[in-house]
Amino acid sequence: MAFTQRDIISIRDFSKSDIENILKLAEKMEPVARSQEKCNILEGKLLGNLFYEPSTRTRLSFEAAMQRLGGGVIGFAEAGVSSATKGENLNDTVRIVAEYTDALVIRHKMEGTARFVADLVDVPVINAGDGAGQHPTQTLLDLYTMKRILGNIDDLHVALVGDLKYGRTVHSLAYALAMFEVKMSFVSPEELRMPREILHDLSNSGVYVNETANIHDVLDQVDVLYVTRIQKERFPDPKEYSKIKGAYLINSKLLNGSRAIVMHPLPRVDEISHDVDDTPYGKYFEQAFYGVPVRMALLKSLIK
Amino acid sequence: MAFTQRDIISIRDFSKSDIENILKLAEKMEPVARSQEKCNILEGKLLGNLFYEPSTRTRLSFEAAMQRLGGGVIGFAEAGVSSATKGENLNDTVRIVAEYTDALVIRHKMEGTARFVADLVDVPVINAGDGAGQHPTQTLLDLYTMKRILGNIDDLHVALVGDLKYGRTVHSLAYALAMFEVKMSFVSPEELRMPREILHDLSNSGVYVNETANIHDVLDQVDVLYVTRIQKERFPDPKEYSKIKGAYLINSKLLNGSRAIVMHPLPRVDEISHDVDDTPYGKYFEQAFYGVPVRMALLKSLIK
Amino acid sequence: MAFTQRDIISIRDFSKSDIENILKLAEKMEPVARSQEKCNILEGKLLGNLFYEPSTRTRLSFEAAMQRLGGGVIGFAEAGVSSATKGENLNDTVRIVAEYTDALVIRHKMEGTARFVADLVDVPVINAGDGAGQHPTQTLLDLYTMKRILGNIDDLHVALVGDLKYGRTVHSLAYALAMFEVKMSFVSPEELRMPREILHDLSNSGVYVNETANIHDVLDQVDVLYVTRIQKERFPDPKEYSKIKGAYLINSKLLNGSRAIVMHPLPRVDEISHDVDDTPYGKYFEQAFYGVPVRMALLKSLIK
Repeated sequence: MAFTQRDIISIRDFSKSDIENILKLAEKMEPVARSQEKCNILEGKLLGNLFYEPSTRTRLSFEAAMQRLGGGVIGFAEAGVSSATKGENLNDTVRIVAEYTDALVIRHKMEGTARFVADLVDVPVINAGDGAGQHPTQTLLDLYTMKRILGNIDDLHVALVGDLKYGRTVHSLAYALAMFEVKMSFVSPEELRMPREILHDLSNSGVYVNETANIHDVLDQVDVLYVTRIQKERFPDPKEYSKIKGAYLINSKLLNGSRAIVMHPLPRVDEISHDVDDTPYGKYFEQAFYGVPVRMALLKSLIK
Repeated sequence: MAFTQRDIISIRDFSKSDIENILKLAEKMEPVARSQEKCNILEGKLLGNLFYEPSTRTRLSFEAAMQRLGGGVIGFAEAGVSSATKGENLNDTVRIVAEYTDALVIRHKMEGTARFVADLVDVPVINAGDGAGQHPTQTLLDLYTMKRILGNIDDLHVALVGDLKYGRTVHSLAYALAMFEVKMSFVSPEELRMPREILHDLSNSGVYVNETANIHDVLDQVDVLYVTRIQKERFPDPKEYSKIKGAYLINSKLLNGSRAIVMHPLPRVDEISHDVDDTPYGKYFEQAFYGVPVRMALLKSLIK
Repeated sequence: MAFTQRDIISIRDFSKSDIENILKLAEKMEPVARSQEKCNILEGKLLGNLFYEPSTRTRLSFEAAMQRLGGGVIGFAEAGVSSATKGENLNDTVRIVAEYTDALVIRHKMEGTARFVADLVDVPVINAGDGAGQHPTQTLLDLYTMKRILGNIDDLHVALVGDLKYGRTVHSLAYALAMFEVKMSFVSPEELRMPREILHDLSNSGVYVNETANIHDVLDQVDVLYVTRIQKERFPDPKEYSKIKGAYLINSKLLNGSRAIVMHPLPRVDEISHDVDDTPYGKYFEQAFYGVPVRMALLKSLIK
């Protein structure tokens, strides 16, 4: 695999065969991620974890991935603990930590930060989310979850549900799914429909797409309900928000009889009822786990 | 030992033989805790350290214990760095970190949190203090300290001194000591006496107990002075507090001629004078050290 | 080397041969610091990193150094996460963490803290900066950088530029350089000249020193421009500050034709223009990297 020393900035930098290779390697990593097998392939290597914004899941799953492979981690979990408080700029901090480590993971609230950083340093850089921008390792673990649980990505019918206008996760996932032989349904309130240019790109790639505001239209047809949060701040009228929130609430009663699995990038607030958590529908915690083998596969591939 | 995958929530879940087994194993761990010997028995394993309240001693001694055994640690040291700031609930955070790790340690200000978490996840959960609730690893290291320094727990006469009404540490320790052939003296101001129901339970278990407000009554008789902090907030009248604080101050003049060792769960404020620190009486730093081999013994026993 | 278990508090505790030995050992550490070679010599050992003030570079480079050698790290990155918030004093925290670890690194805003701590505990203590006091590992990495890039420290002409009155870094470096056969030029505004007593000590040690307010006086003669920040707070008049800041700004136009390398302890604000970063003059990121092998050499030497 020609991944050594590459930067992982956007899912759109990946070819279908890149993705398939990472997913295959992730599968080999699973016994190590579950600590059923030992692997010291990254012993003596160091990952720099630069989280300018807090994130439990992403930060800890990179730390878990690196340590399960025998490597170490340095870094910070929020901007306050870094020299940012002394007025040091991102540029210098990043170049310095790159001197200490074999790869960097960066999360920052500003779109474009990861690409900027990748151009500054010699070590590989992984984008762990830059504002409204990209979060490619989330997309890879989403794809891995579908493949692992449903056996294949090709031939799936995937519904993306909720805020399709502002959610970076669903944008990246839609582009990635379009590389496979899938059907996609976009389920959202009128105000939060998938942006026109993305719909246009998807239709150019020949993938089947339909849009609806009513989740019942797709419930019997889809294999995956990929749910995202609808944020209150998107609606000027609180009553309007309450009404819409109710119409997109996923609970076990709604799911009854469906064959779909329910995924969510987390954190959720209340868009999926807790009564789904321990049913065969609810796969979001398993999905969170798959972040570890996927990130192990990336770290193993990138670090020379 | 049938400890694998068990949760460690309350000292009252332990039988006397459970405790004795842990203390025996802790003794074997000591050369590793002192880095005189190497041990990689937990290589490739990960501990999730979820500290919703800060704690230097408990958090760092778990990290030391895990790393001395070759394992790794992920987690957070205060709630602010977790996704709690994004509104994610404890439930989801804990289930996700459990997906990444082989055991969880949790500290939380709310009583009952550890038991709640243990019921949610498949990995073993260790309670590192939940508010007014339990802190069982503190009790185990207290017992280990007595055994290690005085040779045995049976036949000791232990005085618990200070705030016996609100201190969770002394409640747990009293119940644990009652499994052994000990005498206990409870030394406290009238306002902070050991709760009646605990006295009742202890008397049912047949252990010798006496109560006094005057530390001089027991000073010549006891093997251990286990001191806890008397908090100013317990007294409406600052003058009353000052008077009482003075009456329970442990200093080297008071100890002169006694055979007792002085223990303290730490942090102390000023209830033990610094002139005791480097005398043969002061054992609280050694006690803190024993937290490492005791926690190593637990981690080795719990993680499969 | 007679370093085992020694404390590293001030560069002035080091003999010239101590320094030369550490620099030689650091050179052997470089392939491990670059992860070209593996080394597990500190496997099973633990470093306690006690940062009462935040610091990206120093903290992370100690963590990198320890982990590259197979060891582990525990500690805190700012005072807030420690039990300091519960009113625990430095004394107790430090003694407790010393019980868990094989060496301590401490940064604190109060001068003299590191020496105070070293007297309290049995494990070796490394001063990572105590206020206006010392920061000896910075000086060692500064010397190592000169030796590594320029081949030798003897026969160099080193200019210290900027705030020479308050900067602890330049004070320590001047004393250390005075052990070698160097020339030194002190370039600063009148208000921020090197303190008289240091000039006196240096002249007693027979080293060549000259002072100037004009950087152009030395630009053609020196091998190293060691630049430090001039802080706005030192000047009551903002206009005066702006004028002075401009006169000491290092940019690539100024450097054009010089043989000097530019060093900086970092963080910088704007005293070195970013247009120097990727020229052959700018060596401050390489200098930051050398913090790792130098600290590896110290940790290997100190930890028994």
